[in-house]
Parts: sequence; structure tokens; C-alpha cells
Amino acid sequence: MSNPTAAMLVIGDEILSGRTREANAYHLAGRLTPVGIELREIRVVPDDHGVIVDALNALRAAHRHVFTSGGIGPTHDDITVDAVAAAFGVAVEVRDDARQQMQAAVGVGRVLTAEHLRMARIPAGAELIVNRISGAPGFSVGNVHVMAGVPDIFVAMLDELLPSLEAGSPVLSREVRFEVGEGRIAAPLRELAAALPTLSIGSYPFRDTTGYGTNIVVRGTDAALIDRAIERLEAIRSATA
Amino acid sequence: MSNPTAAMLVIGDEILSGRTREANAYHLAGRLTPVGIELREIRVVPDDHGVIVDALNALRAAHRHVFTSGGIGPTHDDITVDAVAAAFGVAVEVRDDARQQMQAAVGVGRVLTAEHLRMARIPAGAELIVNRISGAPGFSVGNVHVMAGVPDIFVAMLDELLPSLEAGSPVLSREVRFEVGEGRIAAPLRELAAALPTLSIGSYPFRDTTGYGTNIVVRGTDAALIDRAIERLEAIRSATA
Repeated sequence: MSNPTAAMLVIGDEILSGRTREANAYHLAGRLTPVGIELREIRVVPDDHGVIVDALNALRAAHRHVFTSGGIGPTHDDITVDAVAAAFGVAVEVRDDARQQMQAAVGVGRVLTAEHLRMARIPAGAELIVNRISGAPGFSVGNVHVMAGVPDIFVAMLDELLPSLEAGSPVLSREVRFEVGEGRIAAPLRELAAALPTLSIGSYPFRDTTGYGTNIVVRGTDAALIDRAIERLEAIRSATA
Repeated sequence: MSNPTAAMLVIGDEILSGRTREANAYHLAGRLTPVGIELREIRVVPDDHGVIVDALNALRAAHRHVFTSGGIGPTHDDITVDAVAAAFGVAVEVRDDARQQMQAAVGVGRVLTAEHLRMARIPAGAELIVNRISGAPGFSVGNVHVMAGVPDIFVAMLDELLPSLEAGSPVLSREVRFEVGEGRIAAPLRELAAALPTLSIGSYPFRDTTGYGTNIVVRGTDAALIDRAIERLEAIRSATA
């Protein structure tokens, strides 16, 4: 597949300490696949300036898009904006358009505090990502898209951002469920995967109250080829039952 | 903190495609923090030999422990064992002790299939990690600990492994809940974080039906110092209410 690739960078001590269960990667993955952007890496790093800068530079060089989540609030541990600016070697400033979006969210006529203004600090040259939930915008610099970690705000920002991105061929997916463990079907599966190398064929074992089973997932951009793989899988299932 | 550091490498196309919600990182993080092993990175990569080898080599050089999850079953897309062996430059062989563990799980006297034997392939020099759920063992090579992706098997393998690892000073954690948005307390929080630099003070905003709120989490290895931070936070809360 020659679809554009992407990486996600999740920023936050709270994920690594086990306090918080990461919630945005699954949502992002589910949104990218149908528009043909291929998520190739998810990386979670702590609130550490040097580590964030190094990860951003590695990921933005390797992928068409980098999506970040976390660290853009008003407190001392929100260091993503400065790290992104450092990675690109640009300045950070309180921008009028960001300030106006904060003002609209806080209410016309109310005085913006230092903390509101802190959330209007944007790297030079960035494009804002509107935050319809709480006002404080995300932004894109080059191929890096900076969004909030709070899940409903992440979802809202991605809704704003995604239509503007270069997409690829939608990746289609079909599954066949086998009521046997994956060891029982490994040999014919290997043959099938070798015969259809442009498809991705994944084997996902599970256990439930009735015993072992396996879901086989076929993914690719060619619907007819996927249908052919599914027919072959159904034949394997009949032969195994 | 001078606790040993760790990274987790999650291997699996199914996470990156959005098919499956990753489940093992949160469990691992919650188990490592109390024993003083500091999780510094989580990385999710696809079923791609070269990518896995490169990630393993980067992470094992940077951290005291690397924990992997996924890709050790019997099917064609299970390529973790060979990637780990390639990263260490060692051979892979069907080992007698691993074969015995498979045999015990399958049942004495039953003939092991090629797929069972595939799950007894272990890099030379590795120590096995017992799998009390389904038999097929995980293993440690050097500082890399290779475990299954199926969540209940990952949990069981980590139970086996963790007591054998070098631990650190337990990291303690206390929280104070504020019924105001984090912007309202950002200034005194910044002062507190600057005054107690050996503690990690995190600010986690939330929204619920009653409006905005913020949880402040204080983490560190010195219980008396954490208690002092909590007293200061409660004073800030009284002043803000």
C-alpha cells in the first residue's frame, strides 16, 4: 500500500504511571484507517522536554503526519507547545486569532486571565485547530497536529482537522470467525497469506466460555481480492469443522 | 529518582488499524509503579520484522527493562520470536524445556503438532516465563521480556516474571480534587512544583455533569514530603473555594 503514513505521540506522565488509561489512540486509529492514512506507530512519552523534542523530530521525519495528544493546558506540566516549537526551531507567541477563540469561549466582555492567555500561546506559522468544547485551540505546524489529551476535546479537534488532510485509498477489512484455536488453521493460513501478498491477513486468538477460537482479519484496498480471500477462508473453515 | 527505567513494546497491526483496543500497557504500568520500576516509554509497532528489530535495539539500549506484548503465537503473523533473536544476534531453536511445558498443557501422551512446536521455538540463551493459562511460554533474553498479547496470558506471565526483576523504591501517589478548572489554580501550583522539585506534580482536568474540575496528583518516593505537598494543596483549595 502506498497510503500516507502517520504516527501518534501521546504525551503524559499519567499514562506511564498507570494512573490514567490512554483513550485517544484507539479513537485515532479507527478514524484514520477508513480514510486511508496508515498509522504505523504509537509512542507514549513522559512530560520531559528533551524526550518530547527528540520523539517529535524522529516521527515527523519518518511519517507524512504526526498527531499528538496531551500537554496543551495552562499548568506547569503542560509543555507540549514549547517542545513542538523547539522541534521546529520557531518562536511561541500569544496570537490574536487564538486569543479571540479563547475570548469567545470564556464570554465576550470577560477579562482573560494569564492562564487563558497561556492557552493562546501558539508556535509561529501554525494553523489553528478549532476546539468547539472549551475554546483553547490546537494547531498544526508542518506535518505535526497538536491536540488535547482530554478525550472529548481530542475527538472534537480531530473532527475539525481530518477533512483537511491528504487522504489515501480506504483500507477495507473483513473477518471470518473460527471456533478452533489458531494452531489448527495455521498451516492453510500461511499458504493463503503467501498466495495473496498484497493483503494483510491477521490471526487473533480468543478464549470465551465455549473454549478457544480465532478471528481471521483480511485487510487491503482491493475489495475483489478481499472477497476471494474470504471465500478461501470459508472453505478452510468448512474443512476444519 | 534513580529507579530502574523500563519501556514497553507492543507488537501488532490490529492495534494500529483500530481493530483492537490495546489492553496490556495500562496493566503493566499499574504493576511497575508500586515496585519502583519507572515506565518511560510505550511504543506500538506493526508486524514488520525490521521495525520490531530497530525498536527493540533502541529500547533495550536506553532502559533497564523492555517488556514486549504480542506476536508469539503459531501463525504466520507471529514474528516476535525471530525479531528478538535477530536483535540479539542469536539463533532460535525448539527447546526441550519449552516443549515439555507445551506437552503438559496439551496433555500427556497427545502428539504435539507443528504449531505446538512452533510455540516452543525460543532464542538461544533465553529464560522461559511460565504460561499457566495455555502452556506456550514467554521468555527473557538479556533485559527483554517477551510476553503474549492475549490479555489474560499477559497478566499471568507478568505475575510469573515480576518477582524476579530488580525493583526500585516504591513510588507513592496522593491526589487532591479541586472543583474548579485548572486555569484557576495554575499559578499557586507552579509555585508549589518549583518549591518541591523532587516531587512530580501533575494536573489532570476533567469535566463532569457539575462542570469543570481538576485532580492534582503528587508522586514521589518520600512520603513525608508528599504529605507536606498535600497540606499545601488543601490550603490552596480552601483559598480557591
